Amino acid sequence: MSLKSDFENGIVVLGAGNVATHLSIALSKAGFFIKCIYSKTTESAKELALKVDSLYTNELSQIPDKADLYIIAVKDEIIEEMIKHLDLKYGMIVHTAGSISIDIFENQFKNYGVFYPLQTFSKSRKINFSNIPICIEASNKQLESKLLNLANCLTNSVSLINSEKRKMLHLSAVFACNFANHMYSAATEILDQSGVSFDLLKPLIIETVQKAIDSNPIKAQTGPAVRNDKNVIQKHLEMLKDNPEFEKIYRFVSESIFILNQKKGKK
Amino acid sequence: MSLKSDFENGIVVLGAGNVATHLSIALSKAGFFIKCIYSKTTESAKELALKVDSLYTNELSQIPDKADLYIIAVKDEIIEEMIKHLDLKYGMIVHTAGSISIDIFENQFKNYGVFYPLQTFSKSRKINFSNIPICIEASNKQLESKLLNLANCLTNSVSLINSEKRKMLHLSAVFACNFANHMYSAATEILDQSGVSFDLLKPLIIETVQKAIDSNPIKAQTGPAVRNDKNVIQKHLEMLKDNPEFEKIYRFVSESIFILNQKKGKK
Repeated sequence: MSLKSDFENGIVVLGAGNVATHLSIALSKAGFFIKCIYSKTTESAKELALKVDSLYTNELSQIPDKADLYIIAVKDEIIEEMIKHLDLKYGMIVHTAGSISIDIFENQFKNYGVFYPLQTFSKSRKINFSNIPICIEASNKQLESKLLNLANCLTNSVSLINSEKRKMLHLSAVFACNFANHMYSAATEILDQSGVSFDLLKPLIIETVQKAIDSNPIKAQTGPAVRNDKNVIQKHLEMLKDNPEFEKIYRFVSESIFILNQKKGKK
Repeated sequence: MSLKSDFENGIVVLGAGNVATHLSIALSKAGFFIKCIYSKTTESAKELALKVDSLYTNELSQIPDKADLYIIAVKDEIIEEMIKHLDLKYGMIVHTAGSISIDIFENQFKNYGVFYPLQTFSKSRKINFSNIPICIEASNKQLESKLLNLANCLTNSVSLINSEKRKMLHLSAVFACNFANHMYSAATEILDQSGVSFDLLKPLIIETVQKAIDSNPIKAQTGPAVRNDKNVIQKHLEMLKDNPEFEKIYRFVSESIFILNQKKGKK
């Protein structure tokens, strides 16, 4: 397949965590050659390498120098340091981080970019890549085209998103994923205290998401905060008095719901 | 059907809002006789009455006095006042509110209870009642049995939940539904500012919910807060400096994610 000829010398994946694992497996399944997995933890590198039939190493100095693409998929906070230790004379380099600008590469490389899959990954959970948005940015048109082709082999949702927009997308994803999930965590904690099963909340959780996705979450809002039902709000705050973190969240999220609703002029 | 003979003199629904509408329609579809809809707004009463082929009134003094069941499905804050104005010599009475104790009826009625459907309802949105949890509480065993039978005609998920547990369930539902939804609202607001489509977040939102439901939201958490990635957190807070409500939410939810993760000893 001609699309794949751009990557026939193989892909090196730096990292063996959640993103690296799912991305390497998806690339391998799509027929790309994973040449080497690097992780500072040999066991993690080996585990992933076995899954994608590649070499592995725990030494940055040992990674192959003639691959077509180097994908950095490590924790955001160590990307900069890792780049400093990379001495690549060949190939293109990308990172997979929502919050890091493409400029992090500019002093050291010519062909660089970002390959950001917008999803929450856990190693133990199977995932279907085919509808995961992949956001692409590249230092030049030729590389952009190659990365778009690569992404199109994995998913039906590929977008060109520059660093500024990607940062906002990443911030919004923290709200929509991590923070929404924490609201479920708070709910389980509250239910645990009273011996009620989390299962009872599941139909509500699913309908809430479906409603937000089908229409618009601001319009779809219900509950005491949007009604400004001070009586219920006050009772709930009292019920949370032994849990200052959840009490603070309750107070500020309720305020924010009410303010946003006023601003958007509904109800 | 013998189950329905307990309600052959009909059901009066007090209220014509989201809950009243969906519940009346579900009862009517299940073959129960809706005798009358009351709403202080004639138009709302009439609109719902037409859907369930019943009488309607906007005067509490005009509601039929020989129905088998009176269902109060109005805003929590006006239930108490409404009860004071009800003079019923016959039938059973229930409310549908998560946050209100069954005791609200005790000085005035003998056969009273709670019929709490745990779901987020919007009038304009069709809903399938068959998997919505209905939580029952009753002043005596005979009524309890009748309400359980009634609920079983609407859904496969019926539970006996006392007022204390129902309050906790309602509080947890505010987190899991209203607050999670507000996290989506915040995400849409942030994306709107940068001209990125909310559609890009939808696969992430769906996978986050699916993961939380399949395992446990506390274990499923990902992102900068659970990793305690101060660098990303600080950048995000700066990006939110023109939006003090979202900034506060970001700060306190991140803190709470980290604290809960430490407490549960994961990662």
